[in-house]
Amino acid sequence: MSKGAQTRAAILKKATAMAGVHGLEGMSIGRLATVTGMSKSGLFGHFGSKEALQRAVLDDAIAELTLRVLDPAQQEARGEARLRALFRGWLEWGDSEEHLGGCPIVSASIEFANRPGELHDFLADYHELWLDRIRRMCQKAVSEGNFHEGLDTRQFASEFHSIGLGFNLARYLMKDDNALQYAYTALDRLIRSVKN
Amino acid sequence: MSKGAQTRAAILKKATAMAGVHGLEGMSIGRLATVTGMSKSGLFGHFGSKEALQRAVLDDAIAELTLRVLDPAQQEARGEARLRALFRGWLEWGDSEEHLGGCPIVSASIEFANRPGELHDFLADYHELWLDRIRRMCQKAVSEGNFHEGLDTRQFASEFHSIGLGFNLARYLMKDDNALQYAYTALDRLIRSVKN
Repeated sequence: MSKGAQTRAAILKKATAMAGVHGLEGMSIGRLATVTGMSKSGLFGHFGSKEALQRAVLDDAIAELTLRVLDPAQQEARGEARLRALFRGWLEWGDSEEHLGGCPIVSASIEFANRPGELHDFLADYHELWLDRIRRMCQKAVSEGNFHEGLDTRQFASEFHSIGLGFNLARYLMKDDNALQYAYTALDRLIRSVKN
Repeated sequence: MSKGAQTRAAILKKATAMAGVHGLEGMSIGRLATVTGMSKSGLFGHFGSKEALQRAVLDDAIAELTLRVLDPAQQEARGEARLRALFRGWLEWGDSEEHLGGCPIVSASIEFANRPGELHDFLADYHELWLDRIRRMCQKAVSEGNFHEGLDTRQFASEFHSIGLGFNLARYLMKDDNALQYAYTALDRLIRSVKN
């Protein structure tokens, strides 16, 4: 990695941590200059604008989610096992040390839910992709004979995702030690209700 | 209502709409001065500080949730019918015209999930109360014989709440026309799995 790329990665790490607490809008260039020890113009030199930095934080989060959650899940047997691995990986990833506020994509999505613009559209599209990926994994579970024929796989994806959203709120807002247990119990019930 | 109280209520309405788009932190006094046609010092005269205004927006939202969702649900027969009424009322309330970004308490909770301070603690406590209210309604459904004995009512409350969170994201971020249908189908499945 070149020195420029290293610096960029180090800035992104600090920016991600800041966004986890203050949101993407609350991630101020001034505050970021303080914690990185760089000048504001130096930061702009790497990212161009606050919007570009916000987008870079999201791109980085998505790349990491792919590397640390989606790719490992693909190693599992397709069908139910893969869905369970995706769920476990997603929750554990959001719960890792660098994500103080849980899954950064969930947080950003709520932040921009009703704020028209590029980031909103990007996040809405990403959610569509994410739900579609769960839907397709669920479809595989049907064709593998794990789940019953005729299952509404988009409905399944919606419920799978909702459980993760509930986990985020219970774990980070409420600091509920049982958050993970509620989530796994809910997933078990969901899967039990669709199994052959 | 006195003139002062009327003005305060009118400001709160605009502030709530602004928070629905920009979040409680993004609700700037300057921008609020523009849309209300008041001076910044006039606004401070009514609320004292930005923090106090944020808290007033939340208090107002909670008072409205009580009046328009909780109280009507209490009119329903206790047990399953009351839980269904609470769910329907909550979703419809978040979906009303003045809440551009869905349930304002959910949005604020994600925004402050990892931002220590009074608002965080207030929101965490409110969520505890909300979940406990669902839990107690569920307990009544057990004692009425609607739901089976030995049910984990806190788990039920967690899942009930998660479905609502999923609805918020699907409806507002993704503008998914099927969001309401996914939510009701999920609630039906949840209730079916705990029924006698």
